[in-house]
Amino acid sequence: MKPTIPKGTRDFLPAQMQGRKYIFNTAEKVFQKFGFLPIETPAVENLSMLTGKYGEEGDQLMFKILHRAEKFKKALRNRSEEAKESDFAELALRYDLTVPFARFVVQNQNEITFPFRRYQIQPVWRADRPQKGRYREFYQCDVDVVGTDSLICEVELIQIFNEVLDALRIPEYQIKINNRKILAGIAELIGEEEHLVPITVAIDKLDKIGKDQVNQELLSAGVSEKAITALQPIIELEGDFEEKLSQLASLFQTVSIGLKGVEELRSIYQMCSDLETHKHLTLDLTLARGLNYYTGAIFEVGCKGFKGSICGGGRYDDLTGLFGLKGISGVGISFGADRIYDVMLDQNLFPSHQLNNLKVLAVNFGEREGRYALEVITVLRSKGLNAELYPSPAKLKKQMSYADSRKAEFVLLIGDQEMNSGELTVKNMVTGTQEAMTLDRLIQVCLNSKA
Amino acid sequence: MKPTIPKGTRDFLPAQMQGRKYIFNTAEKVFQKFGFLPIETPAVENLSMLTGKYGEEGDQLMFKILHRAEKFKKALRNRSEEAKESDFAELALRYDLTVPFARFVVQNQNEITFPFRRYQIQPVWRADRPQKGRYREFYQCDVDVVGTDSLICEVELIQIFNEVLDALRIPEYQIKINNRKILAGIAELIGEEEHLVPITVAIDKLDKIGKDQVNQELLSAGVSEKAITALQPIIELEGDFEEKLSQLASLFQTVSIGLKGVEELRSIYQMCSDLETHKHLTLDLTLARGLNYYTGAIFEVGCKGFKGSICGGGRYDDLTGLFGLKGISGVGISFGADRIYDVMLDQNLFPSHQLNNLKVLAVNFGEREGRYALEVITVLRSKGLNAELYPSPAKLKKQMSYADSRKAEFVLLIGDQEMNSGELTVKNMVTGTQEAMTLDRLIQVCLNSKA
Repeated sequence: MKPTIPKGTRDFLPAQMQGRKYIFNTAEKVFQKFGFLPIETPAVENLSMLTGKYGEEGDQLMFKILHRAEKFKKALRNRSEEAKESDFAELALRYDLTVPFARFVVQNQNEITFPFRRYQIQPVWRADRPQKGRYREFYQCDVDVVGTDSLICEVELIQIFNEVLDALRIPEYQIKINNRKILAGIAELIGEEEHLVPITVAIDKLDKIGKDQVNQELLSAGVSEKAITALQPIIELEGDFEEKLSQLASLFQTVSIGLKGVEELRSIYQMCSDLETHKHLTLDLTLARGLNYYTGAIFEVGCKGFKGSICGGGRYDDLTGLFGLKGISGVGISFGADRIYDVMLDQNLFPSHQLNNLKVLAVNFGEREGRYALEVITVLRSKGLNAELYPSPAKLKKQMSYADSRKAEFVLLIGDQEMNSGELTVKNMVTGTQEAMTLDRLIQVCLNSKA
Repeated sequence: MKPTIPKGTRDFLPAQMQGRKYIFNTAEKVFQKFGFLPIETPAVENLSMLTGKYGEEGDQLMFKILHRAEKFKKALRNRSEEAKESDFAELALRYDLTVPFARFVVQNQNEITFPFRRYQIQPVWRADRPQKGRYREFYQCDVDVVGTDSLICEVELIQIFNEVLDALRIPEYQIKINNRKILAGIAELIGEEEHLVPITVAIDKLDKIGKDQVNQELLSAGVSEKAITALQPIIELEGDFEEKLSQLASLFQTVSIGLKGVEELRSIYQMCSDLETHKHLTLDLTLARGLNYYTGAIFEVGCKGFKGSICGGGRYDDLTGLFGLKGISGVGISFGADRIYDVMLDQNLFPSHQLNNLKVLAVNFGEREGRYALEVITVLRSKGLNAELYPSPAKLKKQMSYADSRKAEFVLLIGDQEMNSGELTVKNMVTGTQEAMTLDRLIQVCLNSKA
């Protein structure tokens, strides 16, 4: 039987895992400094919890779990040509981390303290058509605060963007920010309040499909030509962050929701400036974010050498309302770990010495020598050093080539002579030099080497 | 809509996550010291890769993914009362980590170097009847070496058991060891070679169902009464590890497979003694391990205060043969993270100060004070300290109760007076004392405190 894996999924080899762990560990350390706590939810949710939360497309792309045993037989007995997928399933794989988080908050509301700050790093599954950079199983890495509408949270999330992306050395990234209230204000201003959703959806595609097609889409959605014409100069406003806000404020005049949005962004930008965390921030009035649960600030991050966004997020005022808990405002961001991995790999941004490189490989020259070497290796490990004994007395060439592939820093050669003298022969694989030394000295050499 | 999660699955709250991370991090550090490398495989495998690998029960308990869209409609059109679940699915959730690992090794054989040492920590899914300590989604934590039959690997895995379980302070654990070749030798000795599998399966249940029922089962499987009588004194052999091996060796005489098993265990035990890692090791001739791919040493670990095993493992000579790659011997062990968690929680073994406790919570007294405090908090974070500002100027009592629930070590009170003097009021939540200090001094106090 030829081994295969499902379309759009991947095995992660050790080298890839090390890069991925580097990203997750870096992010996690920052999240913890900011007081965020980890949670996990099950991979499988009740289908009824997810259905309808991601639009029609989401319902179609969701992986559903087939009924088993009696339930399957029953579904089969009731079968008709009109049977739906949901007649054969009551469970589904997690489609994102946001809806399960809302479910979690409501279900565990008596166990947690608000404001609740959580991070969550887990895979999600979508039956999208696989293509370069798009997978059917991929990780999301989300940070959210729920239970407060304080704009300090937006500021902290911007600080988190900066700290994580700086630590990963992501090149020339831009944190684009906008506010759904400004978009609502614009819709009101052009007399198209009732078309806010299609306007948001259309503007969101500006990057991808261009102005003409967006306008076409607005027209089809029933937005008047006059309104579309009025829209153009607004989304093309020029100037720096504060200038754009001033121009918007004058445009809005009495459109109070728009003014509220301007006020929020002004306040966020002011706090960021005070903390000197505003340098990557740009106000992008064409940023809309497709997901309709956003109600305040929205974010998207892009970087040099990558088309599309590597992070996103925003404020939502009533996500937990889906599950019956009203009045819980929240704001969150998400790191696209798979995309960040691709950027770092492409641009050679991973640090050269990583987590699991092998410090010492001991060559195995035979049973007696092997046992001696195992004791030496055991001592090295007790000092916290990553060390290995080649498990069988294979040809030296084979063992050395294994040492190379494992990027061992030192190779230990222990034969008769070494066992008698107690002086071990140590080859430095970086410099190529070889010298005899005691075990104590070897420990010192290993602990002092930085590679 | 009332929030619910699927039967047998769990949300992990921050406190639980911290305990789980403590276990995984502890294990992972040991795995890395021993030169093991991380891999991950997809949650979803092609159903054909898993079917038939876990017996009939496994096939039934596997979660399968329902066909979508056209494939679903086609399955529905072809529907008949005799349709099988596999007519509606071509994907399934991972049932364990071992079969996907074998698939991984074969599929990536040109990318990896043998002997290949990997660890893998991921969830698996089984539609078992949920009960205390048994879940439908649970984590496996596996360590394997493939591509060598050296017994040094068995010894290293025993060292790993010791290091991980000692580091976690698991009380009075026993590493039970046996060898499938000894079981085969016993079957041959009592003239029941052809019944090796039912003998293995029956002996495996000795702990759970007792001797009489095991004998009953052997009888039903066609093992002769004479053989069953002959079996009793063998599995009830007494003495220490080496004495039992000697007695077995005399019994086996010319049963070469049995002698081979004795020889392997003797060699493993000898190496463990030399390394002083034999103290938790006991030879248990009733240990059989149900999974039939084992061919050499087998392991199971129990501990004080827990019924059942917390770890297991063994050597398999031809697991990758399932996927067409012959002659790759391997040996591996698995830590039952969920069970270890239960043991540690029950017996209060988690260290009191854990990963994510909050070092500083700053109280928020208003907009101006909040902004000032945010700058202070930002400095603390830049020193690597976990710190938080309460995001809104809520009542002091509410903020203090939040600080309690987050187990904050220090609470920072910054009002007008503090902003003017630059001396911050700091309450030590452990001692209850309160004092004024500069930011520099606060940093020192935080960095020096160990809680």
